[in-house]
Amino acid sequence: MNKQTQIKPRLLKGFRDYMPPELLARRSVIERAARVFESFGFQPIDTPALEYSDVLTGKYGEEGDKLLYRFRDNGDRDVSLRYDLTVPLARVVAMHRPVMPFKRYQVAPVWRAEKPAKGRFREFLQFDIDVVGAAPPVADAEVVIAGISALRAIGIEDFKVRLNHRGLLNAVLRSFGVSDTLQEDVIRSLDKLEKAGVDAVTEMIAKTTGSVTQAGELTRMVAGMPGTAELSQLVKLDADGQDSLDELQGVMGLCRAAGMGDYIRFDLSIARGLDYYTGVVFETQLLSMPRFGSVMSGGRYDGLIGMFMGEMVPAVGISIGIDRLVNALEEAGLLKSHDIPVEVEVLAMGKDMLEPAFAVATIVRDAGYSCEIYTGFHRKLKAQLSFSAKKGVKFCVILGPDEVSQGNVVLRDMINGSQQVVRLDMLGRVLGGGNG
Amino acid sequence: MNKQTQIKPRLLKGFRDYMPPELLARRSVIERAARVFESFGFQPIDTPALEYSDVLTGKYGEEGDKLLYRFRDNGDRDVSLRYDLTVPLARVVAMHRPVMPFKRYQVAPVWRAEKPAKGRFREFLQFDIDVVGAAPPVADAEVVIAGISALRAIGIEDFKVRLNHRGLLNAVLRSFGVSDTLQEDVIRSLDKLEKAGVDAVTEMIAKTTGSVTQAGELTRMVAGMPGTAELSQLVKLDADGQDSLDELQGVMGLCRAAGMGDYIRFDLSIARGLDYYTGVVFETQLLSMPRFGSVMSGGRYDGLIGMFMGEMVPAVGISIGIDRLVNALEEAGLLKSHDIPVEVEVLAMGKDMLEPAFAVATIVRDAGYSCEIYTGFHRKLKAQLSFSAKKGVKFCVILGPDEVSQGNVVLRDMINGSQQVVRLDMLGRVLGGGNG
Repeated sequence: MNKQTQIKPRLLKGFRDYMPPELLARRSVIERAARVFESFGFQPIDTPALEYSDVLTGKYGEEGDKLLYRFRDNGDRDVSLRYDLTVPLARVVAMHRPVMPFKRYQVAPVWRAEKPAKGRFREFLQFDIDVVGAAPPVADAEVVIAGISALRAIGIEDFKVRLNHRGLLNAVLRSFGVSDTLQEDVIRSLDKLEKAGVDAVTEMIAKTTGSVTQAGELTRMVAGMPGTAELSQLVKLDADGQDSLDELQGVMGLCRAAGMGDYIRFDLSIARGLDYYTGVVFETQLLSMPRFGSVMSGGRYDGLIGMFMGEMVPAVGISIGIDRLVNALEEAGLLKSHDIPVEVEVLAMGKDMLEPAFAVATIVRDAGYSCEIYTGFHRKLKAQLSFSAKKGVKFCVILGPDEVSQGNVVLRDMINGSQQVVRLDMLGRVLGGGNG
Repeated sequence: MNKQTQIKPRLLKGFRDYMPPELLARRSVIERAARVFESFGFQPIDTPALEYSDVLTGKYGEEGDKLLYRFRDNGDRDVSLRYDLTVPLARVVAMHRPVMPFKRYQVAPVWRAEKPAKGRFREFLQFDIDVVGAAPPVADAEVVIAGISALRAIGIEDFKVRLNHRGLLNAVLRSFGVSDTLQEDVIRSLDKLEKAGVDAVTEMIAKTTGSVTQAGELTRMVAGMPGTAELSQLVKLDADGQDSLDELQGVMGLCRAAGMGDYIRFDLSIARGLDYYTGVVFETQLLSMPRFGSVMSGGRYDGLIGMFMGEMVPAVGISIGIDRLVNALEEAGLLKSHDIPVEVEVLAMGKDMLEPAFAVATIVRDAGYSCEIYTGFHRKLKAQLSFSAKKGVKFCVILGPDEVSQGNVVLRDMINGSQQVVRLDMLGRVLGGGNG
């Protein structure tokens, strides 16, 4: 080993280690969601962490492109760490041409060079499901229903999926006289309605459009949270707008038919920042913990895959923020951190007892117990038992020279403190009876 | 969506997509190994993909450092993608100071800018177990036994773990008069024995040491694969060498005591390339498929963690090459690629049948079946059934206007082709009987 000065162990800002209790909590959430998505017919895939940069750029908006971890690799290729799971999926579809509709899920970290803040990380886990190659409304409803079912399987009930439609939002803005070039700015302002309030958003929009009256009317209408039927009364929609509204109502009708009506609502202020959405869009708030932001978001993006292929391929998907959900569950006391228990600790009383201890451990594991050999074999029995008690094992198997020389071991029940001498060739059977 | 020219979808060389069948095959291998390691008391952790570069450099040798994906991030920090899971573990131990012995496992991708070749990738998955804070021989034997047990749980029996000891190898070289400064070069040559043969390795070593006689004797002795007892006859070991031999024999004795004797053997030619090993080292070859190289390697590295801490912390671990194992299993026909089956396909005969179809899907899923609604609801029954048959579903639930208006659906058994009309409120019970 090369000698060198001591290195300060440290983590990059916005990055995290997961120690066993946190990792196991996260894993249980992921596994419950995965089982649900599999029951909806979604299949898992995985893609590389690194992509050619031009595969990723130009899809997330200017802001998104700036947040890429982008560099030149040893072969001077322009590469980036993946920013989300949707663009890599589009690349996968274009390259592998799977049978359509292609329903996949992926759980993987993504990297964004954002300013770290409480709950905002530079490396975080996304859990995405998407249906590729299917038009509305079936696939749109299916991803929303699958998402709702996954949240419920995780133990979350107190949430609302807020749905909107990009085409509808555009038509509403047109009806208020907002020109196409200004729409993006106005949408960005409306997106802040919940946090900033009506007055502040009116002011922002007036600044963009130049008309305070128009800005006030638009903002108040959106803030009034009209239902889809009410909206048709309030706003004269053009044909595109009416089609979009019909599509959204169709999706929401299917969600209701599936028994998910209580979990959804129409919200005209939902826009989703990402450039690539074209149809239905949605976000999900935890009603009692709104500060966690959207824990499940997505929408339809019918143009994205076409950027990689000669043909247009419709697609819709949902992305679950696993880290936010885990944090929210922990805060609500719905997720218990825990280690995987070791059930049996094998205690060797001295170095000579190690070989018998290893033989015993194999017997214990073959009997179906998790088991380890305590490395502190040189310590006194009391110290070894104290270590085992702290660890919370169910049984200790104690190997002392006297017992072992007669072909016996001592089996100690750590719950009630009782112990018995057991013949080595009977140990599996004695334990098997206890666990079987 | 911004218009832009079409982007060629492509993958970086040495990187891979995993489509569902491959991913599921890999997942089943990982899960079987994880269950074994958990039964040995190892707990999972996770660490970031990116680390400060100085956390990683100086531990893998000069060659390793050159293979890092290293760059400056948006904040001009010198960062690198992780190269293995052992150095991040050392950082974790120094930062989190877990209770010792700390037994952790981690399954995660690592990145190395190597020249891609058949079976050699720039992004690949490692599965590591390590025991931190425990001296030999218990922990060393435990990781070897756990590794052997994991391979067997995966379905592999035809393998041999070849063990050596760094201190022993150094003592043998000293006894042949190889000076300390030349040892590393000589070890690198001996490492090639299997591939290059005795004559070529003798020549390499003679070039390093200047003595053809000495080089020939050393190479022939190592190539003769002496056992540990035989070695003591052949070579006069100094005190350090004898201690190392005792340690290695102790570890091998414990492996035999655990019933793993058939899977291990002593091999003086095993050195392991990585700079940080200090004690027992091992590699594992598949006997019938040696071209896959070592599928499980590791050893003791008592100095590494000390590079991050004021104190020395002993540690030993094993790393499984999941990708190699998956490839080997596939080649041996021991791993079947498969999708997660969808059991029930719900077929809506036209748009008006979609809402009832979504209601039916919820009933089917509540009855414990995986289920999806076919998106081609506008297609004729024959086409929808043909899609379902190709997909391999067990049942189709068919919703036509006539049946649905009477509160019925058609349940078709896709295995035997029989079908029955079922009342909607009985569907869950009828299916429940079939699956329960």
